[in-house]
Amino acid sequence: MPLEPKNVVLIGAGNVAFHLGKALKRSGNKLLLLINRNEKRGERLGFELGCQFTTDFKAIPDETDIVIIAVKDDAIAEVAGKIFCPGKVVVHTSGSVPMSALGDASDRLGVFYPLQTMHRGSEVNMKEVPFCIEGNSNWNEGMLLELARSISDNVQVLSSEQRKMTHIAAVFACNFTNHFYALSEEILEKNGMSLDILKPLIKKTASNILSGHPKELQTGPAMRNDTKVMQEHLDMLENLSPELKKLYADVSESIIKMHRS
Amino acid sequence: MPLEPKNVVLIGAGNVAFHLGKALKRSGNKLLLLINRNEKRGERLGFELGCQFTTDFKAIPDETDIVIIAVKDDAIAEVAGKIFCPGKVVVHTSGSVPMSALGDASDRLGVFYPLQTMHRGSEVNMKEVPFCIEGNSNWNEGMLLELARSISDNVQVLSSEQRKMTHIAAVFACNFTNHFYALSEEILEKNGMSLDILKPLIKKTASNILSGHPKELQTGPAMRNDTKVMQEHLDMLENLSPELKKLYADVSESIIKMHRS
Repeated sequence: MPLEPKNVVLIGAGNVAFHLGKALKRSGNKLLLLINRNEKRGERLGFELGCQFTTDFKAIPDETDIVIIAVKDDAIAEVAGKIFCPGKVVVHTSGSVPMSALGDASDRLGVFYPLQTMHRGSEVNMKEVPFCIEGNSNWNEGMLLELARSISDNVQVLSSEQRKMTHIAAVFACNFTNHFYALSEEILEKNGMSLDILKPLIKKTASNILSGHPKELQTGPAMRNDTKVMQEHLDMLENLSPELKKLYADVSESIIKMHRS
Repeated sequence: MPLEPKNVVLIGAGNVAFHLGKALKRSGNKLLLLINRNEKRGERLGFELGCQFTTDFKAIPDETDIVIIAVKDDAIAEVAGKIFCPGKVVVHTSGSVPMSALGDASDRLGVFYPLQTMHRGSEVNMKEVPFCIEGNSNWNEGMLLELARSISDNVQVLSSEQRKMTHIAAVFACNFTNHFYALSEEILEKNGMSLDILKPLIKKTASNILSGHPKELQTGPAMRNDTKVMQEHLDMLENLSPELKKLYADVSESIIKMHRS
């Protein structure tokens, strides 16, 4: 399917705006304008993306197809309240904010949610990033599908409910696992070692589930219901941190429960 | 350093024995004998490894340098009690069992712990697997270092205390993160979706920490202390499973605590 380049206005100057802006340019779409409240950050990103920049939320050009609000969750409604562009598709990029938060910014509303952690410093392969699309009409959804497919090979239409559940699942699979890496590093460093010793294991654990079900790949003392080892670990954690001990007990209990049922 | 091939006797027929046996053969060491209580499993592994097999724990040949007891944690002491081979180095492969569990099997005791999850079905790149070595004398440690270095490029001498702490850290970074993948899959499947949508994110989260500190890479609602989103997630999880809700609350609290202190 030959894709027609879209005229896009991007609002925001954070990590998502940065990576999305770069991907939009690379995929041949037209970045008409960058809008951001903070002039300094906006100007810098506008320069990096090679597009016009303004702090004026009313300056959306007539030829715009899609306005992407890529700001923090709790700023979406406020930003949407500042723009008014009927006929243009207005979307936000959040996993957890309902489409309705966009209010009366347009009659054409949608969600354009890239399911990936994005840091300024690290490269993101957008072709692999799953984009979760929602629109308040088939026409809007079609427009957003086209835009998303020009950026990524992995595009899905999800309802608001499914998107919320996906976001919760991502918190478990990404935010929480990263925190467990951090706790692991804390334990090792307190004992004069480094996380480096675990990196091959971490890499393998994540790559294993790319071709299998995590439940079937579970290993460790809780999986074996090895109460002796678990008690030893709890005793050692008690000396280290009561909080780590509690987490160890809670997660082990959850593993035991999943594998007994 | 030119390595002298070692004469090894392997005890056990599980996943670790399988992968270790294969790596020992590949690295040019000599597998003299496989010993296993269960005849059928032992015979099969002996055939796969192309080495002699017996159920007789007394049959350790005179020319043996190292006996590797690669059995489940709670069977180590029992198996060690069945062998007696002074002058030969006797080791187990466990992260959590003290060296002393080997008792009087020999005067030369040690630990030979490959820090990696090993499944029969999936390939293990032993060159990248960290081996944690311990010996009850410098001579033994040297012998075990040589053997480990013939298999892996990542060999470390750890004390029993450090090995235990490393094992606990591995439970957090591997077993617990895998369980969070499994919970994530459960949430998605209950809502008509599949874990596939999160796989790029999971891959990215794990690969990010190979070159950075997880604490600095943390993202998500708990990291931002975004109480609104966390409350929404807790409300949605309440309907799904009280246990998931509790875990979400506990881990979020731990994230908030780490990033406030």
